[in-house]
Amino acid sequence: MRNKNLLYAQSGGVTPVINATACGLIETARKNSRKLGKVLAGKDGILGILNEELIDTSKESKTAIAALRHTPGGAFGSCRFKLKGIEESRAQYERLIEVFKAHNIGYFFYNGGGDSADTAYKVSQISARLGFPVQCIGVPKTIDNDLPITDNCPGFGSVAKYVAVSIKEASLDVASMASSSTRVFVLEVMGRHAGWIAAAGGLAQQKKGDPPHVILFPELLLDQAALLQKVDKAVQTHGYCSIVVSEGVRDQQGRFLADSGRRDAFGHAQLGGVAPVIAGMITEGLGYKSHWAVSDYLQRSARHVAAKTDVDQAYAMGKAAVDLALQGKSGVMPVVVRTSDKPYRWKVGEADLAKVANREKMMPRRFISADGFAITAAARRYLEPLIRGEDYPPYGRDGLPKYVQLKNLLVARKLPVFEV
Amino acid sequence: MRNKNLLYAQSGGVTPVINATACGLIETARKNSRKLGKVLAGKDGILGILNEELIDTSKESKTAIAALRHTPGGAFGSCRFKLKGIEESRAQYERLIEVFKAHNIGYFFYNGGGDSADTAYKVSQISARLGFPVQCIGVPKTIDNDLPITDNCPGFGSVAKYVAVSIKEASLDVASMASSSTRVFVLEVMGRHAGWIAAAGGLAQQKKGDPPHVILFPELLLDQAALLQKVDKAVQTHGYCSIVVSEGVRDQQGRFLADSGRRDAFGHAQLGGVAPVIAGMITEGLGYKSHWAVSDYLQRSARHVAAKTDVDQAYAMGKAAVDLALQGKSGVMPVVVRTSDKPYRWKVGEADLAKVANREKMMPRRFISADGFAITAAARRYLEPLIRGEDYPPYGRDGLPKYVQLKNLLVARKLPVFEV
Repeated sequence: MRNKNLLYAQSGGVTPVINATACGLIETARKNSRKLGKVLAGKDGILGILNEELIDTSKESKTAIAALRHTPGGAFGSCRFKLKGIEESRAQYERLIEVFKAHNIGYFFYNGGGDSADTAYKVSQISARLGFPVQCIGVPKTIDNDLPITDNCPGFGSVAKYVAVSIKEASLDVASMASSSTRVFVLEVMGRHAGWIAAAGGLAQQKKGDPPHVILFPELLLDQAALLQKVDKAVQTHGYCSIVVSEGVRDQQGRFLADSGRRDAFGHAQLGGVAPVIAGMITEGLGYKSHWAVSDYLQRSARHVAAKTDVDQAYAMGKAAVDLALQGKSGVMPVVVRTSDKPYRWKVGEADLAKVANREKMMPRRFISADGFAITAAARRYLEPLIRGEDYPPYGRDGLPKYVQLKNLLVARKLPVFEV
Repeated sequence: MRNKNLLYAQSGGVTPVINATACGLIETARKNSRKLGKVLAGKDGILGILNEELIDTSKESKTAIAALRHTPGGAFGSCRFKLKGIEESRAQYERLIEVFKAHNIGYFFYNGGGDSADTAYKVSQISARLGFPVQCIGVPKTIDNDLPITDNCPGFGSVAKYVAVSIKEASLDVASMASSSTRVFVLEVMGRHAGWIAAAGGLAQQKKGDPPHVILFPELLLDQAALLQKVDKAVQTHGYCSIVVSEGVRDQQGRFLADSGRRDAFGHAQLGGVAPVIAGMITEGLGYKSHWAVSDYLQRSARHVAAKTDVDQAYAMGKAAVDLALQGKSGVMPVVVRTSDKPYRWKVGEADLAKVANREKMMPRRFISADGFAITAAARRYLEPLIRGEDYPPYGRDGLPKYVQLKNLLVARKLPVFEV
């Protein structure tokens, strides 16, 4: 009997290192070709599986696959598409199993956040029930760092590094000019419900008084008077004030400051633009000239300033996923286990998908200072190892990073068209 | 007689590499200590000179000065403060000369853009007229790349690299998700009147069809219908559309799309926030989900992704400024002279400050494609060498760049207080 093929899909917002996970997974599968078939990949994630658009990664050269390690974005495409409950979306689950059958899939790897872990878990259940058992492995990925059990999520560390480096650099700029020009700089970062990314900005504060002087977390409702007082104090003390604000900051009534009213496919509010709101509030309230930046996708694609810890862990998750498959496991997810803070040590562990699915890990309140505008020593101890190390992509003669573009050739269809 | 001291001041918006120029200048002066005195620096630029707040750079270690080469921001502080005409601002010019006299200044180096070249030129005239001739040397710096005579301006190349790398990375992100999520991404960059920085985004387009698909230049009034058509075409062809927009884009009536109504100390409009305007226009007009980023100060402080060409040239300008001083020159500015495109070669030249002062070098129309939304081969030939090479700062164990913070000790005052 032919070895069973592997099916890999990327899900949700991409990260600077999700392709490093794909690299680890494909390279490990190729090393085990005596036991494993090809690695196929869903074009644009699970939508590609439902549409039977399956990319044959065996058509990609060894060099191209190796280059995934340093290429941001999602090399096979990703999507925001959530399968609902098994009863509600039975036809879709059945279609997945049909596609698995048609393409001799024995292993399904779903690389994403909490929603994806939930889907992978449901697929593992239904595949057994429908008589075509497939080993389903979740593979962690999210810049939001909000998956439970794993110490941290691949993708987060590089975004954290981007934010910490960026606010450090921009603060040097503001500090240079503050005596006669801009006094306040506001950098908006992602993190809808959990302040992990905003907290990472606090790492730039290497000693007391260093910027950022204010961090605004989505965990706390904004106290405008306290903010203005804090900003004014920073300007009086340091000559300027440097601020990191989470896109998810809410007012005293619990409304997002930047709510655009639009929602994404998962029903989450689509945010953006809180930085100008905060900057305007400060300029109006205190009279200081302000500047603001919104890093948006830049932060989650900035592979050029990725953290080596993060790249290594992302790769390790891909490798571990195949290792778990080879051990016959299903309904599990490899995770990062921190075994020591100082020196920082980690190893690969394993979690039940059922325990990962649909649970957001919030940032503990003890990571936020008493006044609500900074991170604590405990947060620093947790966060700092995650941004360690540099892992530059190779650059071409033209001064640009050499990111790979895969051929992404599809395998021949075997099934009728399916209406997603 | 004691050797005359050097006085250095940084002016206007800082850059990722203005300190590399300071490094070149101070290191070269130190090497010539038999002929030259100390290097003093105006705290916060020319304001510090008027206030007799002079930093004694001789108190800084060799290591600290060397670290300026890789530290963004303005290490001695900068300011937006323009001296007016000699008649109008006579008291200020006279104060400068008084400070020069009191501190045995023989050489004045003003590191800035067009306004600063103008000031340096005027100081060179008035110092002779007031019987205390000081050699005045302009030192080029501006991310706007709008100084005449010099082939390019130190600071621009690194911002150009930041923009090209960022739009390349963010486009990979958008491309991954476009089938089910964001279709259009808009990155706002600086460049008030000249589209040099926006044009640099075009370098990310390494082959036909690559992003960015649209560049909006401040040189052309925005044709909204043509823009929407172009965006729609890109989405139909590539699945998504990636856009770089200059903060200085204007509507058909010539009004800045992002005019906040505020003005800086030079009387320039303070801009920001055109990206959300463009994104909203597209989402409303075409229905595509859009995302936007405003890079603001991040782009001009991103030393972590500086171009080696730029760092080398910035350093060379500082060195050349001292060399010109040693040759007895005044009223001049070192410039970058391009001697060959392929292979790219450059050398240091020299320009009269009178010819540099108050002249903006606009981007030639032939650098913009016929349809107005892209750069031409000529632009690419000019721009590409400027982003070449990587020149990473050293990083600490904590994952952050090791940027230097100088002691910035002031020399003792010798003069009465002056009301600027």
